[in-house]
Amino acid sequence: MNELREDGFLGGRLRITQPLRGYRSGADAVMLAASCPAQPDESVLELGCGAGVASLCLGWRVPRLRLTGLERQEDYAELARRNAARNGISLHVLTGDLGAMPAELRRESFDHVIANPPYFIAGTKAGDAGRNLSRQEDTPLVGWIDAALRRLRPGGIITLIQRADRLDAVLSTLQGRAGAIAILPVAARQGREAGRIILTARKAARTPLRLLAPFIMHDGAQHWLDGEDFSSQASAVLREGASMVEYFAKES
Amino acid sequence: MNELREDGFLGGRLRITQPLRGYRSGADAVMLAASCPAQPDESVLELGCGAGVASLCLGWRVPRLRLTGLERQEDYAELARRNAARNGISLHVLTGDLGAMPAELRRESFDHVIANPPYFIAGTKAGDAGRNLSRQEDTPLVGWIDAALRRLRPGGIITLIQRADRLDAVLSTLQGRAGAIAILPVAARQGREAGRIILTARKAARTPLRLLAPFIMHDGAQHWLDGEDFSSQASAVLREGASMVEYFAKES
Repeated sequence: MNELREDGFLGGRLRITQPLRGYRSGADAVMLAASCPAQPDESVLELGCGAGVASLCLGWRVPRLRLTGLERQEDYAELARRNAARNGISLHVLTGDLGAMPAELRRESFDHVIANPPYFIAGTKAGDAGRNLSRQEDTPLVGWIDAALRRLRPGGIITLIQRADRLDAVLSTLQGRAGAIAILPVAARQGREAGRIILTARKAARTPLRLLAPFIMHDGAQHWLDGEDFSSQASAVLREGASMVEYFAKES
Repeated sequence: MNELREDGFLGGRLRITQPLRGYRSGADAVMLAASCPAQPDESVLELGCGAGVASLCLGWRVPRLRLTGLERQEDYAELARRNAARNGISLHVLTGDLGAMPAELRRESFDHVIANPPYFIAGTKAGDAGRNLSRQEDTPLVGWIDAALRRLRPGGIITLIQRADRLDAVLSTLQGRAGAIAILPVAARQGREAGRIILTARKAARTPLRLLAPFIMHDGAQHWLDGEDFSSQASAVLREGASMVEYFAKES
């Protein structure tokens, strides 16, 4: 693993050590955590936890969670353990692969599974070995969602963040196996296409799908400033650790 | 068929005779037509054309289309023929069922297929026989999309309007058979969930899916006025026959 650096997340409330190059967690992991509707004392499994950013953001926001992370790269798994200890949040990290899940996990079922499955096809991005390994699609999206559904208790909730252009693959995989699907489009600016979707679904439910109003990351029509120009709602999530669960709530 | 009435569409530019009760076309049909990217001289098939509103709106906007409508209720098919003649638009209407398509249609392939598949499960809505027949799901959504894809030429475009909560069923049916899927959420107001989706897809294409910014029907956060309060973009489509094709255009 290349040079490490400590980054602040949630406006410095979390200190996370990550490799300087290669696969690095960012806004996606924070928004994934913000969108998971876990309640105190529930169990949460993160598939592909990397350096632990999403699980630790969630653990920072919701008290007394039982957090488990699965990560197949031992160096990232070890970073996740160190980051959990550094921030005083309990996170049990297992090294292992989605396709050959550790026996300890296969025996368990969880209230929540969260995941930020890799976006890029192998070979489409240059980068170091860590980046390539974490980003490539050894385990296609369907494998991630299958694994998530298998590890959920009936009625448990999957929360995913994914590139918007993979919405069809995500929904096809969930079809008939999960319901109460809620899709939150995430767009850079008002009036723009969604770049990401955040999706929650309930295992074995039959409640109809909902397509929510987009979550807008930046104010204004274009990026004018040199600095960041996050919208107030994006800033609340990224800088203050605000929940996004209310964006998924049913309209009255 | 019960009592008939002539309604104005596109600000009175089209005069459409419909039953006063039962299945009646409205804004959905107009928006479906507005979203179809047909070019002059192309061929268009409408599945389930009812009294012809969508096809006639499209024929009003785009010159020299070869328009065909399939409708299984003979009284509606006859209305569609009368409405076409009344408005001076050429529309060839066949009586027949999606599941047993007339031989004349099975021999043809089209540049475009448009459809507003029925939304309601049989028995969930009271109403007269015409309404029940057109609204019930004798032919489930998958049958509509299958029929549309079979009647498209390779590279031809399907345009659908559908309830937003059926996005998963629509995408699962299209998966692997059409690409360049573009989803336009239609929401009553800014910040509200989508009630409808309008979807275009290209047969046998592999271009990635796009989730577009929502089309907003009404201004303001709530309905305050007694009259209509359409947004300027909705008003342009419904009252002036404006195209919605540009909402599907790729962002630069």
